[in-house]
Amino acid sequence: MTISMFQASVPVFIRALNNLAGILEKGAAHAKAHKIDEAVLLNSRLFPDMFPLVRQVQIATDTARSGAARLAGVEFPAYEDNETTFAALAARIHNTVKFLETLQSTQIDGSEDRTISWQSRSSTKSMQGQPYLFNHLLPNVHFHVTTAYNILRHNGIEVGKKDFLGT
Amino acid sequence: MTISMFQASVPVFIRALNNLAGILEKGAAHAKAHKIDEAVLLNSRLFPDMFPLVRQVQIATDTARSGAARLAGVEFPAYEDNETTFAALAARIHNTVKFLETLQSTQIDGSEDRTISWQSRSSTKSMQGQPYLFNHLLPNVHFHVTTAYNILRHNGIEVGKKDFLGT
Repeated sequence: MTISMFQASVPVFIRALNNLAGILEKGAAHAKAHKIDEAVLLNSRLFPDMFPLVRQVQIATDTARSGAARLAGVEFPAYEDNETTFAALAARIHNTVKFLETLQSTQIDGSEDRTISWQSRSSTKSMQGQPYLFNHLLPNVHFHVTTAYNILRHNGIEVGKKDFLGT
Repeated sequence: MTISMFQASVPVFIRALNNLAGILEKGAAHAKAHKIDEAVLLNSRLFPDMFPLVRQVQIATDTARSGAARLAGVEFPAYEDNETTFAALAARIHNTVKFLETLQSTQIDGSEDRTISWQSRSSTKSMQGQPYLFNHLLPNVHFHVTTAYNILRHNGIEVGKKDFLGT
């Protein structure tokens, strides 16, 4: 086994997103069982100026998709941010995983020294591939998956650390 | 630049923990400014059966310290879980970072194929080094730092994504 930029990114993102899909499934089942409008959970947040659940999932998928594509030097599909149901969020995650599965290790390996540039809301940013992955992408993907988990947990959905880590 | 088990673990943990220390500093400053008993924030949680802030910080430091030590094949110091102030949590993080700084790349590089075994509450677990790092340690450290952040955010402390990611 060798450790490489591909091994440290694509399979890690896929795992985190599949775990997120499982967590959201439990949220959907809870909403159904307790006759809660799904929109209530999707728009739930931990503080008024924090993003709600739906946005956490959108950002988690965006970060994984755009980040892995930038490491590979390929274009990535844009998604509309228009999900209003758990099923639509599940489809977004599914599509993201399908896209990630198209990326090859030959495209991403060696990207540790490549300069990755991207447009943020306010400016053009650039980082070397290795700090981009370890200081930006991985913490960000985990941050938004964890915050989605915490929002559901805060609303009484019975998810646990095993759902977050996967088995 | 090369990507290695050391590069993917020790500096990433140190960065996450230093960012956590900065987030907690803002929590301490908020408590002081608003005359809030620090114990209220340290014992705050997002749901009754979730761990409070103090425990999130303890687990984040434990995971980084024990995980990096296991990858390096060295013993790690045990800490008492007795913090009751932000200053004590800052000291715990500081001590953890100091310990991590003693670990050498020569001890950790190559651990991707090593079998890592540890005792959980209920059983002896073992994983290969690479999945241990990418599927267990990194998500766990990020999970507990994010949840500490979310608990403070939920209590109105003005921290933002930049505090989590560092600069």
